[in-house]
Amino acid sequence: MTKSIFYHAGCPVCISAEHDIINLIGADNVELVHIGEDRKRIAEAELAGVKSVPALLTPNKNVLHLNFGASIADVKG
Amino acid sequence: MTKSIFYHAGCPVCISAEHDIINLIGADNVELVHIGEDRKRIAEAELAGVKSVPALLTPNKNVLHLNFGASIADVKG
Repeated sequence: MTKSIFYHAGCPVCISAEHDIINLIGADNVELVHIGEDRKRIAEAELAGVKSVPALLTPNKNVLHLNFGASIADVKG
Repeated sequence: MTKSIFYHAGCPVCISAEHDIINLIGADNVELVHIGEDRKRIAEAELAGVKSVPALLTPNKNVLHLNFGASIADVKG
């Protein structure tokens, strides 16, 4: 894995953070995953340690939780 | 301002996030400010919107609060 993965749920906080992350590290270096729409990836995000979105999974598999938007529990509904 | 500023307080969560940010955006693109030691910069951080550390102030002046480490109130003591 060389790209980071940005997990989000389409909330305003998520979109704002997404723009910041793309500006900082470049669109080519990050995969954007909307777990509200692409629900089969929720389990993957949880397994990676994502507790809330937006969150950035770095290439070395650390999770950076950004400005709290929504908990995974809330996204699962 | 072209660099981001990473505000932290030396806590383990801060140091871990610092390594991640440096890996992601490069050491040349971020100024590291330890507001626990460089206390005169606490006011600057607060004014920029930093509520907790570690936090990254982006070049366009958005604040990304990362994995919660310590509130500014706690750093001020």
